[in-house]
Amino acid sequence: MTYCVGLKLNAGLVLLSDTRTNAGLDNISCYRKMFIFEEPGERSLVIMTAGSLSVTQTTLARLEEAIEDEMADETTSIMKAPNMLRVATIIGDTLTRTRREIADQCRDLKQQASASMIVAGQRRGGDMRMFLIYPEGNFIEATDDTPFLQIGEHKYGKPILDRVVTPDTSLSDAQKAVLLSMDSTLRSNLSVGMPLDLAVMEKDACRVTTRRRIQEGDPDFMEMSAAWSAALRDSFTKVTL
Amino acid sequence: MTYCVGLKLNAGLVLLSDTRTNAGLDNISCYRKMFIFEEPGERSLVIMTAGSLSVTQTTLARLEEAIEDEMADETTSIMKAPNMLRVATIIGDTLTRTRREIADQCRDLKQQASASMIVAGQRRGGDMRMFLIYPEGNFIEATDDTPFLQIGEHKYGKPILDRVVTPDTSLSDAQKAVLLSMDSTLRSNLSVGMPLDLAVMEKDACRVTTRRRIQEGDPDFMEMSAAWSAALRDSFTKVTL
Repeated sequence: MTYCVGLKLNAGLVLLSDTRTNAGLDNISCYRKMFIFEEPGERSLVIMTAGSLSVTQTTLARLEEAIEDEMADETTSIMKAPNMLRVATIIGDTLTRTRREIADQCRDLKQQASASMIVAGQRRGGDMRMFLIYPEGNFIEATDDTPFLQIGEHKYGKPILDRVVTPDTSLSDAQKAVLLSMDSTLRSNLSVGMPLDLAVMEKDACRVTTRRRIQEGDPDFMEMSAAWSAALRDSFTKVTL
Repeated sequence: MTYCVGLKLNAGLVLLSDTRTNAGLDNISCYRKMFIFEEPGERSLVIMTAGSLSVTQTTLARLEEAIEDEMADETTSIMKAPNMLRVATIIGDTLTRTRREIADQCRDLKQQASASMIVAGQRRGGDMRMFLIYPEGNFIEATDDTPFLQIGEHKYGKPILDRVVTPDTSLSDAQKAVLLSMDSTLRSNLSVGMPLDLAVMEKDACRVTTRRRIQEGDPDFMEMSAAWSAALRDSFTKVTL
């Protein structure tokens, strides 16, 4: 499995993904699931992926191919698209076409291959937007009422987001929130694993302003994780029934 | 869906279930999912159920029928079984027989009907034990390494259990832990709903020593839930990244 989470806040976009991929329990690998496309100051896009690696890699390869294609226009290249809605549409179309082709190939084995994605970004002069793209190519958008989107193993890490994230959350608190949401998921589900990829896009910067790979044993992450566990246990003793 | 959780601690057994049953989103009902069978001081059993209501109700009816049957012996009545292992076996056999019959009936509609159960209890002179019984009738037991078992919508409420529950947890803290675990689930998943049923069996009492139905709007539960949210948010501000 996978866990990716994105927050769309008044101050910017905050995105976090894990890197564990598994084909069965005895075939575990590390693959990046966060992909950044940008022309700094003009346009910045972050795509996160969950699901069958063959589907997500092929989809990404096709998106990249279209970006490099000199014949590509605003209907086929996510770096030429006039707005984020068009970006989401191009990704959705590419994802569903790829998914269908691979599903056809897998049919004889009665295996399934599917994937979903989150795309977040901004083009200069446009709004920051974030979309969750379903395997069928349709999508939903983060709003003020629900400022976060998750793909993959999303349940363990949802309670903390439900409690602390609002559109007014600061970028610093938002990074804490996604890392604690990931921490709960890492503790409870083996199929989600370190290292982690974190990206922050400040509003209107149109570039990734913070980008960090957090390795297994990262002292800051371990300290935060231990402090959170201690704080939770402390809170637990204080709450009375 | 459903959420039921049981803890097996050195001090006793603590069990909590919700009561929401739904057949689609527009057909929501309230059904008890916790069933107590006891001869106080001699034997006490608590069964919690998740899954298709037709399977769980029929299984429970058959277990009750066997208890009332004068011809029943230690291989068919959970109130005559010599130990908890035999109790789990009888429930498993009854559950899987019922599930198969109902699955056969549903085959034409291509509908599925399945269920799982938790049974916890003690017979005088024996050990406290707790089992999770799968739809196929096989089962696993709570141990010191993993002193809790969950059925139904278990993911949202697992992080808090992972962090605070050990075999040495007191019965008072254990009640807090299961209620906070339920609280996280209620907040994140609409298919789990109030009221709640709570049961505690102190070690060697061989009876349910605390039994409580917690209604929607219960002031103690609301206060605990609000205090926990406040404590979490407070912890969140204190943890630094």
